[in-house]
Amino acid sequence: MPEIWQDIAERKQRQRAERIPKAWLLRSEYSNGASSSKSVLDVPRKCGILTSRELHITEDLDATNLVAQLAAGKIKSVDVVTAFCKRAAIAQQLVNCLTEIFFEDAISRAKELDEQLEKTGKPVGLLHGLPISIKDSFKVKGYDASVGVAGFCFKPATINSALVDLLLEQGAVLYCKTNVPLTMMALDSHNNVFGRTLNPANRLLTAGGSSGGEGALVAMRGSPLGIGTDVGGSIRIPAMCNGLVGVKPSHGRVPYAGQEGGALPGSSKLGIESTAGPIARNVRDCEMLLRAVGAGNPWLLDPDVLPQSWAQQSPLTVQSPSQPLRVGIVRTDGHVTPLPPIQRLIDEVASALQAYGAVEVIEVDISSLGPRLLKVFNGVMSIDGANTWFDHLELTGEPLSPWLAGRLKRRPQKPLDEVRKLQAQKLDLQSEVQRIWRENNLNIMVLPVAPHPTPKTDSWNTTNYTSALNLLDLPSGVLPVRKFRAADAQGELPDGPPLNGWDKINRGIWTDDRDVFIGSMMSVQVVAPKLMDRKLVESMAVLEKALAPLKDGPGKASKL
Amino acid sequence: MPEIWQDIAERKQRQRAERIPKAWLLRSEYSNGASSSKSVLDVPRKCGILTSRELHITEDLDATNLVAQLAAGKIKSVDVVTAFCKRAAIAQQLVNCLTEIFFEDAISRAKELDEQLEKTGKPVGLLHGLPISIKDSFKVKGYDASVGVAGFCFKPATINSALVDLLLEQGAVLYCKTNVPLTMMALDSHNNVFGRTLNPANRLLTAGGSSGGEGALVAMRGSPLGIGTDVGGSIRIPAMCNGLVGVKPSHGRVPYAGQEGGALPGSSKLGIESTAGPIARNVRDCEMLLRAVGAGNPWLLDPDVLPQSWAQQSPLTVQSPSQPLRVGIVRTDGHVTPLPPIQRLIDEVASALQAYGAVEVIEVDISSLGPRLLKVFNGVMSIDGANTWFDHLELTGEPLSPWLAGRLKRRPQKPLDEVRKLQAQKLDLQSEVQRIWRENNLNIMVLPVAPHPTPKTDSWNTTNYTSALNLLDLPSGVLPVRKFRAADAQGELPDGPPLNGWDKINRGIWTDDRDVFIGSMMSVQVVAPKLMDRKLVESMAVLEKALAPLKDGPGKASKL
Repeated sequence: MPEIWQDIAERKQRQRAERIPKAWLLRSEYSNGASSSKSVLDVPRKCGILTSRELHITEDLDATNLVAQLAAGKIKSVDVVTAFCKRAAIAQQLVNCLTEIFFEDAISRAKELDEQLEKTGKPVGLLHGLPISIKDSFKVKGYDASVGVAGFCFKPATINSALVDLLLEQGAVLYCKTNVPLTMMALDSHNNVFGRTLNPANRLLTAGGSSGGEGALVAMRGSPLGIGTDVGGSIRIPAMCNGLVGVKPSHGRVPYAGQEGGALPGSSKLGIESTAGPIARNVRDCEMLLRAVGAGNPWLLDPDVLPQSWAQQSPLTVQSPSQPLRVGIVRTDGHVTPLPPIQRLIDEVASALQAYGAVEVIEVDISSLGPRLLKVFNGVMSIDGANTWFDHLELTGEPLSPWLAGRLKRRPQKPLDEVRKLQAQKLDLQSEVQRIWRENNLNIMVLPVAPHPTPKTDSWNTTNYTSALNLLDLPSGVLPVRKFRAADAQGELPDGPPLNGWDKINRGIWTDDRDVFIGSMMSVQVVAPKLMDRKLVESMAVLEKALAPLKDGPGKASKL
Repeated sequence: MPEIWQDIAERKQRQRAERIPKAWLLRSEYSNGASSSKSVLDVPRKCGILTSRELHITEDLDATNLVAQLAAGKIKSVDVVTAFCKRAAIAQQLVNCLTEIFFEDAISRAKELDEQLEKTGKPVGLLHGLPISIKDSFKVKGYDASVGVAGFCFKPATINSALVDLLLEQGAVLYCKTNVPLTMMALDSHNNVFGRTLNPANRLLTAGGSSGGEGALVAMRGSPLGIGTDVGGSIRIPAMCNGLVGVKPSHGRVPYAGQEGGALPGSSKLGIESTAGPIARNVRDCEMLLRAVGAGNPWLLDPDVLPQSWAQQSPLTVQSPSQPLRVGIVRTDGHVTPLPPIQRLIDEVASALQAYGAVEVIEVDISSLGPRLLKVFNGVMSIDGANTWFDHLELTGEPLSPWLAGRLKRRPQKPLDEVRKLQAQKLDLQSEVQRIWRENNLNIMVLPVAPHPTPKTDSWNTTNYTSALNLLDLPSGVLPVRKFRAADAQGELPDGPPLNGWDKINRGIWTDDRDVFIGSMMSVQVVAPKLMDRKLVESMAVLEKALAPLKDGPGKASKL
């Protein structure tokens, strides 16, 4: 008789717990006490497990700094990796962000890399000695890629995903994998095997998904750089929820081959391609990762990847008053009106950009396209009628997670001709959006990540602001701007009825307890034309600087 | 009552005939007399319609030369365009290669371009003043894109195809469109509206398809440069049949949007993408076209096109004895064994390459993959069950062309899951072939275009040598090597039974009248890794030089 899912989950959680060295277990005052406070971000500093040097390594140095010091031999990989393993172990105990743990393997590999550098004087690749965390859906030989499905547990991968091979070739050290929602089509990272990942800055709020374990881990400084995947917002949403930078590349930039996505082989070709990308503290760390991937001949590892390194991509031409960065501002998708604080944020961002100089701000109205984008996205995502996922769950009698229950149903597979029509509609929309880029001569557009701030767990409303960009296959990223302040709880809803059911739910988020949002990070989304990944990231670096003044004071650059 | 197809075809042919100026009509001794001789290549020189300067323009200058002289103002576009219009008119009367004729528009445009150059001193784009012919499936505002279907006639296009817009922006002059097979899934360019295109070098042999009108027109020097499309060999097969160079780019290099392919919108996304590419006299003319396309920001015109100009693509690194061009030699697809003259040709090519220096020749065995590639290609191409084509034909009661009758049948659309499986199989095959490139560190592979020489009309046997490369989305081109000589009619079939029905048919081509092949051009195919279009074309230029010695003598470089 096959094992039931509860037993598998228990065994799996025990295996995970046992992979944390005893010395790194939190004293009960932190592991229990922490649950009474909203934020646990300060526990690693207080708990006494990390040395002061390890605190310095994990807090004061970004990934770019770490790689520079590692490659120069100024710091040892074993020290960096050990520091992040410890901190990841603490993060796991506080916010439940990990799935697979392989600290021992990582520390051995770090030692080898240190020896090699000492012997040859040359770093191994562009990521020499850097610990990198990855979403559970990537395969690492010898470890599960269960994506939180009981039926997939205790079936260790026999191959590495293509990106895993590439990262290893570039000298990275993998040390853990991170949690995801069941089916990866939910926005809270919650599944029956590993449980729910919490938001370390405010455990009442969602940590986002589907790369939510990654978001929470990087926010805890338990990882200098994480790799997520995104088919509808799964890198960008946890980046927003955790106050981080996240980049969803275009399809064809970062190898995605050999991924455990739960879907049947070939199905992404009929629907939407998911893409892998970085979640990090700042734009330059994301850029470093993408440059290292491009330099690793990824087109030899995945037939979908284009032979164009980062250096071969068109750079953002230097901005000047005579050739300003042309930024389109998108205020609404026309489907769900952003709540007052989001509207205010976009206002502030537009003003700060105008004030920055060498930036031209152009209002762009896509409100007639938004509802069509949503309809086609939903159509394409439901081609399979969720049957494959239900089949996976039935292997062990596993139920849906609470948020999915009632939302996900077995439906008939769509007929071929309907899929064909969806593809045609997608192409039409891609052409229409291409015209917007062309006719406005835009470098990037800036838009909300969502029509609401980071909400309470299991309350994310709509993904259209992010998923529309997956349908269009546009590279896009999330940039934290400033925290939600007490004053942001002001602002009333418009008169008149909501636009639709989703808009109504969104208004509900605003009539609910607004103070819960105070202190959470508010972010914007940046998007570039298809395959202009380098221009996207270079533009994000410009915006990171241009929007820095918003971080501290109450909207100096704002007209409000 | 809707008009019957015969009446439409008659009206359409009359329209076409009336668009040829009376002064350019052949005297009956040529138009009739020509039918008794196999080759009509010499008629333009003898018929007295072209001036000696027009003969010089159309025969002695390749497209690259023409553009250089046009841009420098040394020659007028109106003269070049008039010369090619005249010669295209003659070609049409001899081999029936045209569909739409717009000589008048072309000559007016040429005059405008001449004036603009005179006024500004600057050429319009990289193709200033060059006449370019295009396959009927491209849309040119104001003219039909009937692709030889009666039901599509007299419905002039209201937009230009994306590539047409780009070519015009680059200064090209369009003056005619060229014939195709019904459904574009046959290898002889024969349809009920326009009839059959003949091979000008030997009207007993096929002119190939589906870009057969283009092949015949360029062979007649009725066009300096033609644009075809290719989903299974439709550029490369007519290039071989007509002794020309043809390049099928990777998907995403040349805009294909706004094409009349007879298929329902979105269907290529579930199957195989067709690509557009050049047919010309030599490699450098093909390169010029591809460079001009890449320089025209094609990614702004078609959402499927990648933002990477020709200059941004990786070039072929300069070859030297220490870093030779690594060429894989593929002798058979494992499905249909090439006939003796094709085997001999590949032998000669391998020897000539080895003799050339700075080339390393590696034998590559793909015979286990060939049959799988064919099976998946056929599966993917029959997703729709040909229903759309039958619907088109039923509009006017039009029958299938003779070759298609019995081959094409209405079949049920494939279920979605079967299509999904085909996509998965395609991905597997792409990964396996990627491994061959990687593990052998190959720059290119050389293989037959077909397992037989250019056959008689309606006798092309299998497209697997070309179509496998469409399934894999590998850029590939055809290079003429040398003519079939009397000695090539030697060589016997192997003992033992044929491999399968296709192999049996192929043997039949060899037991038939072999002397018919004498004088026809023998060509090889060159293929590069995905999206390495620039490396492909630059390698083809190396091979064009390396194989030149084979052209004249009986196989100097050959071991045979």
